[in-house]
Amino acid sequence: MSKRKLNVALIGYQFMGKAHSNAYRQVARFFDDLEVEPVLKVICGRNEENVRKAAQKYGWEEYDTSWERVIERKDIDLVDVSVPGNMHAPIAIAAANAGKMVLCEKPLANTLADARQMYEAVQKNKVPNALCHNYRFAPAVQLAKQLIDEGRIGKIYHFRGTYLQDWIVDPSFPLVWRLQKEVAGSGSHGDLNAHLIDMARFLVGEINEVSGMMETFIKQRPKLAASDDRLGGVASSEMGEVTVDDAALFLVRFDNGAIGSIEATRFALGRKNFNRFEINGSKGSLVFNMERMNELEVYFNDDPPHARGFRVLQASDSMHPFMSAWWPVGHIIGYEHTFINLVYTMLKAFDRGEVFKPDFEDGVRNQAVLEAVDISSQQKRWVSISEL
Amino acid sequence: MSKRKLNVALIGYQFMGKAHSNAYRQVARFFDDLEVEPVLKVICGRNEENVRKAAQKYGWEEYDTSWERVIERKDIDLVDVSVPGNMHAPIAIAAANAGKMVLCEKPLANTLADARQMYEAVQKNKVPNALCHNYRFAPAVQLAKQLIDEGRIGKIYHFRGTYLQDWIVDPSFPLVWRLQKEVAGSGSHGDLNAHLIDMARFLVGEINEVSGMMETFIKQRPKLAASDDRLGGVASSEMGEVTVDDAALFLVRFDNGAIGSIEATRFALGRKNFNRFEINGSKGSLVFNMERMNELEVYFNDDPPHARGFRVLQASDSMHPFMSAWWPVGHIIGYEHTFINLVYTMLKAFDRGEVFKPDFEDGVRNQAVLEAVDISSQQKRWVSISEL
Amino acid sequence: MSKRKLNVALIGYQFMGKAHSNAYRQVARFFDDLEVEPVLKVICGRNEENVRKAAQKYGWEEYDTSWERVIERKDIDLVDVSVPGNMHAPIAIAAANAGKMVLCEKPLANTLADARQMYEAVQKNKVPNALCHNYRFAPAVQLAKQLIDEGRIGKIYHFRGTYLQDWIVDPSFPLVWRLQKEVAGSGSHGDLNAHLIDMARFLVGEINEVSGMMETFIKQRPKLAASDDRLGGVASSEMGEVTVDDAALFLVRFDNGAIGSIEATRFALGRKNFNRFEINGSKGSLVFNMERMNELEVYFNDDPPHARGFRVLQASDSMHPFMSAWWPVGHIIGYEHTFINLVYTMLKAFDRGEVFKPDFEDGVRNQAVLEAVDISSQQKRWVSISEL
Amino acid sequence: MSKRKLNVALIGYQFMGKAHSNAYRQVARFFDDLEVEPVLKVICGRNEENVRKAAQKYGWEEYDTSWERVIERKDIDLVDVSVPGNMHAPIAIAAANAGKMVLCEKPLANTLADARQMYEAVQKNKVPNALCHNYRFAPAVQLAKQLIDEGRIGKIYHFRGTYLQDWIVDPSFPLVWRLQKEVAGSGSHGDLNAHLIDMARFLVGEINEVSGMMETFIKQRPKLAASDDRLGGVASSEMGEVTVDDAALFLVRFDNGAIGSIEATRFALGRKNFNRFEINGSKGSLVFNMERMNELEVYFNDDPPHARGFRVLQASDSMHPFMSAWWPVGHIIGYEHTFINLVYTMLKAFDRGEVFKPDFEDGVRNQAVLEAVDISSQQKRWVSISEL
Repeated sequence: MSKRKLNVALIGYQFMGKAHSNAYRQVARFFDDLEVEPVLKVICGRNEENVRKAAQKYGWEEYDTSWERVIERKDIDLVDVSVPGNMHAPIAIAAANAGKMVLCEKPLANTLADARQMYEAVQKNKVPNALCHNYRFAPAVQLAKQLIDEGRIGKIYHFRGTYLQDWIVDPSFPLVWRLQKEVAGSGSHGDLNAHLIDMARFLVGEINEVSGMMETFIKQRPKLAASDDRLGGVASSEMGEVTVDDAALFLVRFDNGAIGSIEATRFALGRKNFNRFEINGSKGSLVFNMERMNELEVYFNDDPPHARGFRVLQASDSMHPFMSAWWPVGHIIGYEHTFINLVYTMLKAFDRGEVFKPDFEDGVRNQAVLEAVDISSQQKRWVSISEL
Repeated sequence: MSKRKLNVALIGYQFMGKAHSNAYRQVARFFDDLEVEPVLKVICGRNEENVRKAAQKYGWEEYDTSWERVIERKDIDLVDVSVPGNMHAPIAIAAANAGKMVLCEKPLANTLADARQMYEAVQKNKVPNALCHNYRFAPAVQLAKQLIDEGRIGKIYHFRGTYLQDWIVDPSFPLVWRLQKEVAGSGSHGDLNAHLIDMARFLVGEINEVSGMMETFIKQRPKLAASDDRLGGVASSEMGEVTVDDAALFLVRFDNGAIGSIEATRFALGRKNFNRFEINGSKGSLVFNMERMNELEVYFNDDPPHARGFRVLQASDSMHPFMSAWWPVGHIIGYEHTFINLVYTMLKAFDRGEVFKPDFEDGVRNQAVLEAVDISSQQKRWVSISEL
Repeated sequence: MSKRKLNVALIGYQFMGKAHSNAYRQVARFFDDLEVEPVLKVICGRNEENVRKAAQKYGWEEYDTSWERVIERKDIDLVDVSVPGNMHAPIAIAAANAGKMVLCEKPLANTLADARQMYEAVQKNKVPNALCHNYRFAPAVQLAKQLIDEGRIGKIYHFRGTYLQDWIVDPSFPLVWRLQKEVAGSGSHGDLNAHLIDMARFLVGEINEVSGMMETFIKQRPKLAASDDRLGGVASSEMGEVTVDDAALFLVRFDNGAIGSIEATRFALGRKNFNRFEINGSKGSLVFNMERMNELEVYFNDDPPHARGFRVLQASDSMHPFMSAWWPVGHIIGYEHTFINLVYTMLKAFDRGEVFKPDFEDGVRNQAVLEAVDISSQQKRWVSISEL
Repeated sequence: MSKRKLNVALIGYQFMGKAHSNAYRQVARFFDDLEVEPVLKVICGRNEENVRKAAQKYGWEEYDTSWERVIERKDIDLVDVSVPGNMHAPIAIAAANAGKMVLCEKPLANTLADARQMYEAVQKNKVPNALCHNYRFAPAVQLAKQLIDEGRIGKIYHFRGTYLQDWIVDPSFPLVWRLQKEVAGSGSHGDLNAHLIDMARFLVGEINEVSGMMETFIKQRPKLAASDDRLGGVASSEMGEVTVDDAALFLVRFDNGAIGSIEATRFALGRKNFNRFEINGSKGSLVFNMERMNELEVYFNDDPPHARGFRVLQASDSMHPFMSAWWPVGHIIGYEHTFINLVYTMLKAFDRGEVFKPDFEDGVRNQAVLEAVDISSQQKRWVSISEL
């Protein structure tokens, strides 16, 4: 009658820690058919006071300040890696070597070399592994995938992805870890383009070659005094170098002949979480925007000629992916639900011994594209993914 | 260090039970400054198997099949009445008489007489009381209130409210309790117009007189075989009478000179939870729609003439009501969060001995308007609220 | 080879005079199949200097200051009545008695009695007659009509019409003729609700009974010193009484069982020409808004359940009404084109001896509804159209 | 009292011929302050029957089949070149050598070499010259320029331009002249990207370097049997090669440090005339889309933090560029009005001996960017404009 328990250790307690905690806490409260129930066993972070508060606030049974210690615990089934990118590889590899299931935040790593080692580790140890590209798990995105698979969009010609934000336009915004290359790996590129690349691969197919450019508009910022549980923090009076890109754009050719453009920036005033893509195919078009994540715009060319137009679907009805677990149609869900839907899908797959996508293999593929764009940007030429 | 506990008993386990359970479970996980933490002590319903499942699924410690027994318990601090309207009065009055805090789903009662008795009960027993008009607690609605209070909209001329749904357009949709007068009191009127009336009173002011009409388009439907946790259920082969309105419209004059129109229907195909209002004042206008509840449209007439236009505010930034507890701007919240925000506000008020609005007094006022429309519709004349 | 000529006399040279002049000048330049070509023969107005300038600017061959003299002219085929409402009846009746074709601006008259006399005059004299409800001739509106006639919307349940403007919110806006009852007949009601009533009758059917209210928010304004060719003018320092409504709202029952609400106001800040209607039927819904007049929103309930949503049709493709005469799809037309499309339809009908709709009969029916709302508003009761 | 006459010869009578004819016919009917009035003297085309019909339909006094003969006429003041791109250079150069004012359709030429010769010809002969980038003359675009010049957008970081259409997605759409390189020069690139490049240069500044790609999705189509006055025609049974691009995308760096992406395609189903740009600066953002050309979306970062959002300006009020000549606010204008506004601006400039922009110099600069993208696409590298 009662569900099997699965003990989770969460490494990281900031913005992603908050979102992941919520997912584990909520998933079994909504998804009836999930036969396993995650237990919020231990949360881990370096700052003891902060991690203790996080454990209490988010409902974790225990906290720890050593991820090595946590990974050694026999009672832990799944390790969730929600720390900055430079720590993904050591933690995830250790977890894999310890035979744990691993969920890792995106991007998988700060370098392709790291990503490949992580992939090897989960392969070698045969541990279930997952990459946290939560946006795949918006119902409207799953519906987009379904419509493509049904053939309603036809052969895809164009993918047009932009991920626009504006939280660092102000030059006095502090130098948070997301703006430091040694921690974050890159700026808008790894943070935002990683999502678009994963989305493009999910919906269109593998990427063949890219030509890109990157730009840092504000080159110095005040160093950080203290961070918050969102994206910002308190500025100090000392200045430091911004070592990542503020914006990154690239053109792309897919293996299947489709072409596209992908752009990430944190300098688009008025755009808050404008993760938007448009797909044009031989039979129809699709538009999605995370700011209105409960909607999907769809154009079908086989509608009667006088009655064709972009439909705004409310992807929140009971027949839409994940939505029978939630609320009646039009009673929308939010950002956090993408994580819960992901965790549901992941736990069900792991429980059944099935592969969950996206996994570390996707992480490697996404990372290869990110890195190809980086090279292209430096060398001012097209770079084929097969070069890497 | 740890928060004070407050034991909750929830009467009802269907759609509203699900939403309220979630609110109690989540509120302390997000709102740091809440000094009291609700405990999901007992959930109550008539069908033992169903209520047992609900307890397990939603995370309640215990379940019971007798609300009378639950109310007698000394360890219960707050009784949450989330059953159909015909049971609001007996349960809420009993809870008040037992000295419990009470949160009651809207509309407060099926009749004005009942509502007044409930109000008397909480007055007499001096118990903290709350009415669950969750839509007031969408951040965008609170922002609308704030802008009005700041004087940015000026003297209000118009309120235009429509609450449009389409879930019963199909004549084969079954005769759920919401379509039975003896249980629900009324149809779209009490269910949807109640929200608009509360919103109008919250934002514009008290209503003076009304002229209304009601209509039932589909007069017979298949009886219900089994209900689900949303709004629907399984139809049986036997037919029954629809005894409530499918649509209810009315014109309104406010005490302050503003005029308005209010309409509820469940027969507007394509509208899912289209709870929309527009307010026009001498200095600006406001538009809100629950289907895009994270946004508020605002027009300010004091903008430069060549640069005036409706702004689409994303009411999800940290300075917007409730949002510092949630996610970064543009990372939207959903329907369920309106309940969590309400429960947060209510618990904080109760904990501090402050009045929470809307309360049972608002319930009486809202009910008077509902009833005035009903009379107006039958007698085909304007009805003043002061008549009742 | 060349087209037959039809000599037009235009009475009035202000805003509507400008729009009608353009229609006569343009119609034969775009509609190939029109076998008659209007000649801009004479424009008529009381102020000689102004009408002379208008003749020159708008391309009329002659001007005159006496409408009586113009109507007597043998060479005039069609008299276009584009003056304020109080002069519609005398001019149109004289034109009919002189055997002229007549196009009259809306509303047909300031009173139902006048409207009936005008209708009798055109009936008695058997002259082709037309009422200038130009909004019927937006391609998107004709498409709405076509979809309804095709049965795509099903049985209509709801009509929801609002015509919102904001050009007189400022209390210092002068007392133009549109704000004087003896000239305009009424305010927002005859100016704006007349359009909505005509639209409702065109798309839904005849109106059975109404319950309405009217309001004048600003009761005194500066008198007018000089008018412009749009809607405004220059204020003088003397004040005068506003004798018409600023806003007029009413509920409506149609003969076929549909119900509706209709509202006009000039006090909705941010709404410029927000002539919007929504129709909900048993099979679908329609939304039109004159501010985006090239678009029609359509919802079809027979779309696959997972792919239903409001479509935004661009009603500017070659198969859409009138559009094969204009530009490629997406290359939009504007407000003035509704008049050109109307004049095209009218001239073709008159040339073929066919009835053009809307005509003076529609004018009488529209006027009856306007007047019923006026009575209802004064007597605070429902008024049946059959009473009048 | 009466206006000076200016005799116009129009070379070309298809889609652009229709639009330009209308502009000359209408301009003096609306713009009071224009002191010169164009006379539709002669229209010219190779097919005598067609050009005779066009003359009659569009209101030209005469027609001719020889552009050489027309240019020799002493009575012609202005030559309007509205033929396919391969004929721009010979006609415009001859017109300049004959001392005529010249208005040329965009793109200025099919090659940069041709464009430079044309520019030299107008320079040498000192003839007033104009390039027909009509979209600059949408009121909303002029308003965008005004807001940028006022400093409301700040330093520009991003330009994001897409011009999406779908009229050739169907593989059976015929091989019209726009799909033949020897006539059109290029496909979506010269037709659509030319507009975006001109817009980007107008609003952001000169372009420094580009990296582009081009694609032809459908490589063979049925040859054309007969063309229409829009964009299409009748297909024959014989197939022919498509020799132009279906889509063309490029990344761009501006001289002032801004970066951007520009894309044109005729393969975006559902997009009809989706000529959209977004500009993000240090103080605000702007969005324009030709499909809703009467609107401009604007975001100002200096709005109060809780009340920031994209405003949808209706750029149709009397204080907006060109609009005092047209209709009251919200009574929208259409595609054809961009040509009338352009012709108004051009005639006023020519009449006053002032430079009109865009002119042939802009044509050369735009062409250099087009050609740089072409080279970049072939050589798969960044190309600096200064190379050409």
